[in-house]
Amino acid sequence: MRTLDNIVELRQLVAGWRHRSETVGFVPTMGNLHAGHLALVDDARNNADRVVVSIFVNPMQFGPGEDLEAYPRTLKADQEKLVEAGVDLLFAPDVASIYPRGEENTSTVAVPSALTDVLCGRDRPGHFRGVATVVAKLFNMVQPDVAVFGEKDWQQLQVIRRMTEDLNLPVKVLGSPTMRETDGLATSSRNQYLSEEERQRAPLLYQVLQQVSTALSRDRGSLEAALAAGRQRLEEAGFEVDYLEARDRDTLGPPGEGPINVFGAARLGKARLIDNLAVPAPGKAPA
Amino acid sequence: MRTLDNIVELRQLVAGWRHRSETVGFVPTMGNLHAGHLALVDDARNNADRVVVSIFVNPMQFGPGEDLEAYPRTLKADQEKLVEAGVDLLFAPDVASIYPRGEENTSTVAVPSALTDVLCGRDRPGHFRGVATVVAKLFNMVQPDVAVFGEKDWQQLQVIRRMTEDLNLPVKVLGSPTMRETDGLATSSRNQYLSEEERQRAPLLYQVLQQVSTALSRDRGSLEAALAAGRQRLEEAGFEVDYLEARDRDTLGPPGEGPINVFGAARLGKARLIDNLAVPAPGKAPA
Repeated sequence: MRTLDNIVELRQLVAGWRHRSETVGFVPTMGNLHAGHLALVDDARNNADRVVVSIFVNPMQFGPGEDLEAYPRTLKADQEKLVEAGVDLLFAPDVASIYPRGEENTSTVAVPSALTDVLCGRDRPGHFRGVATVVAKLFNMVQPDVAVFGEKDWQQLQVIRRMTEDLNLPVKVLGSPTMRETDGLATSSRNQYLSEEERQRAPLLYQVLQQVSTALSRDRGSLEAALAAGRQRLEEAGFEVDYLEARDRDTLGPPGEGPINVFGAARLGKARLIDNLAVPAPGKAPA
Repeated sequence: MRTLDNIVELRQLVAGWRHRSETVGFVPTMGNLHAGHLALVDDARNNADRVVVSIFVNPMQFGPGEDLEAYPRTLKADQEKLVEAGVDLLFAPDVASIYPRGEENTSTVAVPSALTDVLCGRDRPGHFRGVATVVAKLFNMVQPDVAVFGEKDWQQLQVIRRMTEDLNLPVKVLGSPTMRETDGLATSSRNQYLSEEERQRAPLLYQVLQQVSTALSRDRGSLEAALAAGRQRLEEAGFEVDYLEARDRDTLGPPGEGPINVFGAARLGKARLIDNLAVPAPGKAPA
């Protein structure tokens, strides 16, 4: 596996592959890789001849007071995992390569607010502008055929799908199912912020999402009651709930006739956990 | 010359060229082509194996009360000129192809306000966001190696350069010198809005830019006086001056030590004329 930190060499290497008609799969990450990321790598490998992973902790998507400085940076360990996963190229640029004039002084990509001002975007203004901008840039640097993102960050996935479609970027965006620990907790780099005791309680977020999802699949009229009960369970267990909501899976608008996901974000100790779950169509078994 | 109105066929044709290692030059236009556009086509041809021209009157860059509906649409005549100029492909999409959800409901590209809120951007809020967005989209559709824009729209050229650089689009942006009528008036589709009598007066804008430029090249301290005198000449001749300013050519900030252009925009009858001129370095003859 090659590790590159500059765009010129990255483009040369990818151009060589293209010249041999090899397709390119891309997994953008912020590093601190875990099994969830490696599942994305597998998906990329199954959809392309070559796999590029990027590691870049993107300052533009962190707000004031968020964990930009504290975000775990573990390049050496990440490299070992990626070698083992058969990745062809790790692109690990520094901030000055991505934002040569600073991240405050650059062109940005704004996705329609219907997708960016709800759920995590309500509590994190500018977050999804940062995400859309850096992903557009990375897509243009790597020029992949397909790119893979986790469904755990469902809103992020929808924002990236929309950005890609709206700007006509020639990249196919694939979502990959959320990887979970054996007790149901969605795998995430931020889980390591949990104390041992908090880690025991953390799967409740997933259990609540399951409960709401099951209730909704039986009776959509039960929405408000199911959400209120779920929120209460989380709060009684010491979670600080940012949101617990059901929304149209594609538009992120209010739940209507179309497919619905239940979305939850809650703080537990130092960690902000997010997760989401599809509501099975009426009469179908829950996922 | 092929004329295509859909993105899928456009990409197929361009992919065929790429497969044969042919390079692609691109000239985005709003149609109503004149000698100025054909000079851009020549520049594209001199820098690439294939030339694509697009014609798209982009609603996103027009403000309320501007000339979106009145903007001259002359596809048949444009096609004839492009055939004669040896263009390989004309891409002429409709609005629904470019903005399938409407131009109010799409992701946009915002270039830093230092470039977009001055000069024409001050009088036309949202204009350069519309320009940057549609050019980013067209670049992603056509995927050219080089793209050519006229220096008459200097601010637009700088906005596009900056957008391309900031989003890491793999396109080389070339500026092409302003084409002028024999009396100095910058060639523009909007000149046809002028009455015969106004057309006689119109070259005064260029003459004033020359006068200011010459004064500045002799003595940068004369800036304010030269601009005031120029503005007065234009107003006395019946121009309604939107701005007459000298700015750093690259940053569009206040004139400093770096290279300077003089910029003018003024209304004459139904036409809004814009033009700009480089200030020669001290001691050099004016352009």
